[in-house]
Amino acid sequence: MQIAVLLYDRFTTLDAVGPYELLARLPGAETVFVAKETGPVRNDQGSLALVADRTLAEVPHPDIVLVPGGPDARVAMDDPEILDWLRTADATSTWTTSVCTGSLILASAGLLKDRRATTHWLAFDELRALGVEPTGERVVFDGKYVTAAGVSSGIDMALHLLGRIAGDETAQTIQLLTEYDPQPPYDAGSPEKAPAEIVAYWRGGDKGRADARG
Amino acid sequence: MQIAVLLYDRFTTLDAVGPYELLARLPGAETVFVAKETGPVRNDQGSLALVADRTLAEVPHPDIVLVPGGPDARVAMDDPEILDWLRTADATSTWTTSVCTGSLILASAGLLKDRRATTHWLAFDELRALGVEPTGERVVFDGKYVTAAGVSSGIDMALHLLGRIAGDETAQTIQLLTEYDPQPPYDAGSPEKAPAEIVAYWRGGDKGRADARG
Repeated sequence: MQIAVLLYDRFTTLDAVGPYELLARLPGAETVFVAKETGPVRNDQGSLALVADRTLAEVPHPDIVLVPGGPDARVAMDDPEILDWLRTADATSTWTTSVCTGSLILASAGLLKDRRATTHWLAFDELRALGVEPTGERVVFDGKYVTAAGVSSGIDMALHLLGRIAGDETAQTIQLLTEYDPQPPYDAGSPEKAPAEIVAYWRGGDKGRADARG
Repeated sequence: MQIAVLLYDRFTTLDAVGPYELLARLPGAETVFVAKETGPVRNDQGSLALVADRTLAEVPHPDIVLVPGGPDARVAMDDPEILDWLRTADATSTWTTSVCTGSLILASAGLLKDRRATTHWLAFDELRALGVEPTGERVVFDGKYVTAAGVSSGIDMALHLLGRIAGDETAQTIQLLTEYDPQPPYDAGSPEKAPAEIVAYWRGGDKGRADARG
């Protein structure tokens, strides 16, 4: 079982690392971070780089493809080399997955046609513009295509996937070992739950949206 | 406001990246990943390296110190250079924080003496051996010292910190933008909630513990 996590300039770190931390604990899994070139890939905040250990060409047939989002997902959406790799990998993958605006990249590669999918709540219109109607769910399964909502939702996606791949006991074990027993001090994690004025502010401005929807 | 995230060989990635993703969004914050030497630092799973952009010596006085854990936290607990840096940074920090077995490192530096603190549930005995009684809470504040339980708990810690530093509205905004609205498909994230046989298995073996308590 090979898991490939795609990196590209200005990706959102937790989109990649949240599900990675859980999926990589799958017994027998080999996880590899891939990018157009090996070496450091800088994130959206600019303050952290993750190292891609393999080029896209070196990992043509992963079992699981994981595509993180980023406020500049267009970096990947407009890159023929990345889109070609996604189509090639998807042709033989068991699961093709994304977090946040990563689904915009999958859609740009033509992989979400006529599928149910989701993305960051601030990117719903962009997903629609690519011909995919976003659902309001946090994690969406449609066949082998799994898309998660914004940033932290990839952790929930990983638990769902672990259950499907290895069964409830393995998924629960990994939840226990990563102590994923969320106790946020606020209940503001979705536009339905957050204070209305905060939601309205971020829905309002193009600048805010572009900065925010990693 | 400068936030320093400590890296050392075999750290647990989500311990560092979970709180980083939220804290780095604090308006006006500068976040920097530090290690004994600049360059890639490989994680506990071996499949990912994060880049330290600054040496410890270059960042002597961060406002927030964040120490991730790892199954080999002893790498840092036995390193005089890291412990010296922690004591120096702590002397002027506003907040000194840890996730998972990171608190064992803070305790080794002598920073948790007579304080309330926590760690990964599989490391309670080790924290006790360092003279600190672990509480059963997910996030523990004692003055400027903030310690979180295993791996994913650093995300909750970051939300608490954001609220204290910048107020509820900023914390809620960052929760909304990272869409932290947890919906795990299982309720097995703590030893009190997970199936008893899974907990017993991991409590049982030294090998399991050493592998697991990142």
